[in-house]
Amino acid sequence: MIKDMKFSIFLLLLQVIFIFMYGFFVEYDEVAGPKTNQSSAEDNRQFEILYPMFQDVHVMIFVGFGFLMTFLKRYGYGAVGFNLLLAAFVIQWAILMRGSLTAESKIHLSVETIMNADFAAGAVLISFGAVLGVLSPIQLLVMALLEVAVYAVNEYIIVEHLHINDIGGSLIIHSFGAYFGLAVSVMHWKKRLVDNQKEESVYHSDMFAMIGTLFLWLFWPSFNGALAASHSVVAQRCVTNTLYSIVASTIASFAISSIIDKKGKLSMVHVQNSSLAGGVAAGAVANLATGPMGALLIGTCAGIISVAGYKYVTPTFARAFHIHDTCGVHNLHGMPGVMSAFIAVVMARFMSPTTFSPEELAIVYPNVKDGNFQHQANMQMAGLAVTLGTSIVGGVLTGLVLRAPFIDSADENNLFEDSKYWITDESDRDSPEPMNETAIPLAPSNGETVAEE
Amino acid sequence: MIKDMKFSIFLLLLQVIFIFMYGFFVEYDEVAGPKTNQSSAEDNRQFEILYPMFQDVHVMIFVGFGFLMTFLKRYGYGAVGFNLLLAAFVIQWAILMRGSLTAESKIHLSVETIMNADFAAGAVLISFGAVLGVLSPIQLLVMALLEVAVYAVNEYIIVEHLHINDIGGSLIIHSFGAYFGLAVSVMHWKKRLVDNQKEESVYHSDMFAMIGTLFLWLFWPSFNGALAASHSVVAQRCVTNTLYSIVASTIASFAISSIIDKKGKLSMVHVQNSSLAGGVAAGAVANLATGPMGALLIGTCAGIISVAGYKYVTPTFARAFHIHDTCGVHNLHGMPGVMSAFIAVVMARFMSPTTFSPEELAIVYPNVKDGNFQHQANMQMAGLAVTLGTSIVGGVLTGLVLRAPFIDSADENNLFEDSKYWITDESDRDSPEPMNETAIPLAPSNGETVAEE
Amino acid sequence: MIKDMKFSIFLLLLQVIFIFMYGFFVEYDEVAGPKTNQSSAEDNRQFEILYPMFQDVHVMIFVGFGFLMTFLKRYGYGAVGFNLLLAAFVIQWAILMRGSLTAESKIHLSVETIMNADFAAGAVLISFGAVLGVLSPIQLLVMALLEVAVYAVNEYIIVEHLHINDIGGSLIIHSFGAYFGLAVSVMHWKKRLVDNQKEESVYHSDMFAMIGTLFLWLFWPSFNGALAASHSVVAQRCVTNTLYSIVASTIASFAISSIIDKKGKLSMVHVQNSSLAGGVAAGAVANLATGPMGALLIGTCAGIISVAGYKYVTPTFARAFHIHDTCGVHNLHGMPGVMSAFIAVVMARFMSPTTFSPEELAIVYPNVKDGNFQHQANMQMAGLAVTLGTSIVGGVLTGLVLRAPFIDSADENNLFEDSKYWITDESDRDSPEPMNETAIPLAPSNGETVAEE
Repeated sequence: MIKDMKFSIFLLLLQVIFIFMYGFFVEYDEVAGPKTNQSSAEDNRQFEILYPMFQDVHVMIFVGFGFLMTFLKRYGYGAVGFNLLLAAFVIQWAILMRGSLTAESKIHLSVETIMNADFAAGAVLISFGAVLGVLSPIQLLVMALLEVAVYAVNEYIIVEHLHINDIGGSLIIHSFGAYFGLAVSVMHWKKRLVDNQKEESVYHSDMFAMIGTLFLWLFWPSFNGALAASHSVVAQRCVTNTLYSIVASTIASFAISSIIDKKGKLSMVHVQNSSLAGGVAAGAVANLATGPMGALLIGTCAGIISVAGYKYVTPTFARAFHIHDTCGVHNLHGMPGVMSAFIAVVMARFMSPTTFSPEELAIVYPNVKDGNFQHQANMQMAGLAVTLGTSIVGGVLTGLVLRAPFIDSADENNLFEDSKYWITDESDRDSPEPMNETAIPLAPSNGETVAEE
Repeated sequence: MIKDMKFSIFLLLLQVIFIFMYGFFVEYDEVAGPKTNQSSAEDNRQFEILYPMFQDVHVMIFVGFGFLMTFLKRYGYGAVGFNLLLAAFVIQWAILMRGSLTAESKIHLSVETIMNADFAAGAVLISFGAVLGVLSPIQLLVMALLEVAVYAVNEYIIVEHLHINDIGGSLIIHSFGAYFGLAVSVMHWKKRLVDNQKEESVYHSDMFAMIGTLFLWLFWPSFNGALAASHSVVAQRCVTNTLYSIVASTIASFAISSIIDKKGKLSMVHVQNSSLAGGVAAGAVANLATGPMGALLIGTCAGIISVAGYKYVTPTFARAFHIHDTCGVHNLHGMPGVMSAFIAVVMARFMSPTTFSPEELAIVYPNVKDGNFQHQANMQMAGLAVTLGTSIVGGVLTGLVLRAPFIDSADENNLFEDSKYWITDESDRDSPEPMNETAIPLAPSNGETVAEE
Repeated sequence: MIKDMKFSIFLLLLQVIFIFMYGFFVEYDEVAGPKTNQSSAEDNRQFEILYPMFQDVHVMIFVGFGFLMTFLKRYGYGAVGFNLLLAAFVIQWAILMRGSLTAESKIHLSVETIMNADFAAGAVLISFGAVLGVLSPIQLLVMALLEVAVYAVNEYIIVEHLHINDIGGSLIIHSFGAYFGLAVSVMHWKKRLVDNQKEESVYHSDMFAMIGTLFLWLFWPSFNGALAASHSVVAQRCVTNTLYSIVASTIASFAISSIIDKKGKLSMVHVQNSSLAGGVAAGAVANLATGPMGALLIGTCAGIISVAGYKYVTPTFARAFHIHDTCGVHNLHGMPGVMSAFIAVVMARFMSPTTFSPEELAIVYPNVKDGNFQHQANMQMAGLAVTLGTSIVGGVLTGLVLRAPFIDSADENNLFEDSKYWITDESDRDSPEPMNETAIPLAPSNGETVAEE
């Protein structure tokens, strides 16, 4: 009985703590506060331009990530449900964690800080993708709790101290989330993760996943441009670069997906995921002068790398290193994120002082003094190293904590399976006799295996 | 024959009347009119800030409400289809009804008036949720016709005369829609509404419903903030408060959903609906100074109340009072709406004159003179009373009208069932012989061809 | 082997060519460029107002069109997948084609030019709808390649030379795309296109299609208003007119759908498609002074025409002219588009010089000199003629090219079928033995009560 209530009690306890912490530490930012007179025209504009982009990001986090993970045939409730739970949890927690590192008095709450909390949720959800269907709900909550703390520290170091440029979060969000998740995953290797028939999609679950893919695809330009929202020229360049990069990765994903299949068929896994790799790969360079051709090149490479990752790297990771990666986040967020980080290093190093107008340079590289771009390149490199270090070490330690006996783990028989945590049919309900549904077949792919194939 | 055409004839007749009424009574607002010179910068900004928020609300009404109601396994077409029909119908009708009460010359059409019509559609769709699968299409149309009239009167009284503050429509939209729908429902009690096996979800229908949930969840801050759009500080506070309230209700819903299940399992009903209760509960107080902690507290309580409502109140209502509530709108809109109204009373009563800057006070409580907050509190209380009164009386009378013999009612055998009103399989089509689909089991409707058709 | 790789090689080759062409011919527009100082307030506003509308259009192209076409029971991957591929392909290609006709130096890249490329993608996707499930992927790519070239020429002639007013693209996008697609279709008539059992929907596929319908429905006002975004009064009129037109076509579609069915049942085909006809029909007149009543009338007529088209025209086209039209684009885009064009002719002809303020007149009809509206009407008529001419001739020629032997065509046995081009089940995968799925019913709720629970 108590065992079944552990999840609830833990969650409620944390929520009560959050409520008190918000009482003590958080207040409205001036731009949302009751004592503010209608702010100046410039303040108004901030909200007006930021809010639609925030909502785009918000849709990505909840609909995009949530539905992208519904591809598993029996873990749809868990995918979209725990996605909602974790993101709601992290939004609260990340405000506290991030704010505690930077706030001089109380932590301020505004659309901008909430959007930054959404980004933190993005990182946690990427990690969730690596262990989708493997960890129990309570393990997921503990993971989110610990991951956000490490995330905030990593972000603080590389943004506030190293002053790296990472407008779309290729390091901060994507690389961090992916390697953290993989490190957790390696600590939770199970034999039955191999060739588990439940770790498969069916026709309809792949259609649901496409909802996630498309909303991520569409709003990725907002994701990479939102932090530059107040500078419309920079924001528009972020949007343009990201859109061209993701377009190119889509083309590349289709082409490579077909070419590596022996019958030349396309794989929904690649279409759902690798199509998005261009968005990740543009992350650290979206505000730079890649040029339209550069954006297309970056996206094309990202798409190729990502499909190749699904085909060759993920199975190898599982076999050779016992790193299971349900959604293949290494291929969508890990490798393209690191690739973006490297391109950012190279672009900083070979920066021409005349590429940017002085005003734009001050926005993109605010800490470059006297044209010392070598230093910026060094810092970009250091930022990648710190991100990989904190995410892998943090992930391994978190993975160890999750093995603590009082944290219920998932049953090996219930991997990739909703029925352990969700009321999925009549037998779970309080009604005495289950409805006989065997006479009513339910979904198309059932047995409709086309014989002539 | 004529009987089958009654729905169409009624609908076309109303549409012809609408077209004429628009010809006589409606014209473009100056901000959209052909004779306006490009309006001043301030006018421009109005459209620029309002339009994205309007589109968020618009998505909630059509995708949010529409898909949220697709959870029933055999009423998906009806849920999303009649939702579209009713909302399109109400947008036209509400402009006329609302305008007729306030317009001094012709009724003006702009994005702002359309958004207010969307809100009226929201109330009707909430009522639709209470009787989902129970009323026939023609009954739904008549209900919408009558409900909008009562809605407009209630709104007129409590906004124009009582001057209550209800920025997110907790009274005007949510409480009104819920109690109106429940009052209609009680007049249409049927024995076969109890333990009807068709009133259930299946795996995929619950996934479709989550599309609705998530778009409602994401855009609720816009719903509660849209009417304050032109004051960015107030709008941002509305957004922030609503987002924190809905985040908290999500956490509470998961926790309580699990704790009340004997095996500790989560229920999709709670996740789909109660997660949203914080949005409703924030409605009447979103622009006030609840503070971040206050918003979290409100949302947490709303989530708890809502889950408890699904577990205990809805079955009791059905058993003891013969009030059937298909979607549980009482738990998502009714109780959280009333709760919000009460909090608004308390907050008005114990208002400190120094909480708000004078400028903000004039926006939030424009009718408070000389710091007489007691009067505002009285009016807030009166507003709740008027809303409950008009909605319940209006709903009962509407329910009676819907029992008129010339308004075709739904067959008891076709409750929660698309096949009566929609072409759902081959046997319905004009082709001479139905396709033999037994070899290809495809979808819920397959084979469930109701024999008596 | 090489045969299976033809699609990939062709796609990669084109992508490499695109990358080089972008290197030589395309650069950031000043409003997104690295050398621009933070642009003037007016430039900022352009981006701020345009970007949310652009994202609405973007959602329509990828989610709207993509999911609308998922209604076929076995072509869901193809619908949403090839939609993504084609749109991503066209965005790149249309920038080059359109720019090559107008750019004086390099082609400029900004959100505005990308949105115009999205519109070109819209036309291609309409044509795709006509041949959905009929052409092979490589045929679709070649079609897109050729269609965009013809599209750009048609647009150039009727906008730059005839100076027609077509703010929502009823001629440029809808009529063009529909008749181009039908002309391609007539060149690819196959006997097995008649009464093909695979060309049907199932319950769930119709639900997926409604996702597309709703997002198209919701954002159509943005589609018709986006090009007027910088003039908020005109934009708001476009939005209002379009919304009222689409609302009216929805009502009409429901009414007529029921009235033409012998049992009075509603058809999802009509609800999914004809509901949208008002958006198309408003396209060429959305910025004019139709008045609210006019908008309702236009939408009502469009809805009636569209449903009648599905019932009578499409079967006749197939039987009598061997024009197969999978999605019925003739009924949603063709006829309503032509209707809109005719209304635009009449409205220009009977224009009163006092209808518009001088400033608005200069925006709506910039080339009308000295009140010569007859000339504008002539040009509108000529624009329709040119559009029909280029689309039909272009489509027929494209259809002929697609019959070239080195362009693999679809197998007659694989019409409306994903399994030829997509990995759809275990037998396609590299694993030695296909998973026996008969023992594992698909939707978790299906009686798969886990025994050990």
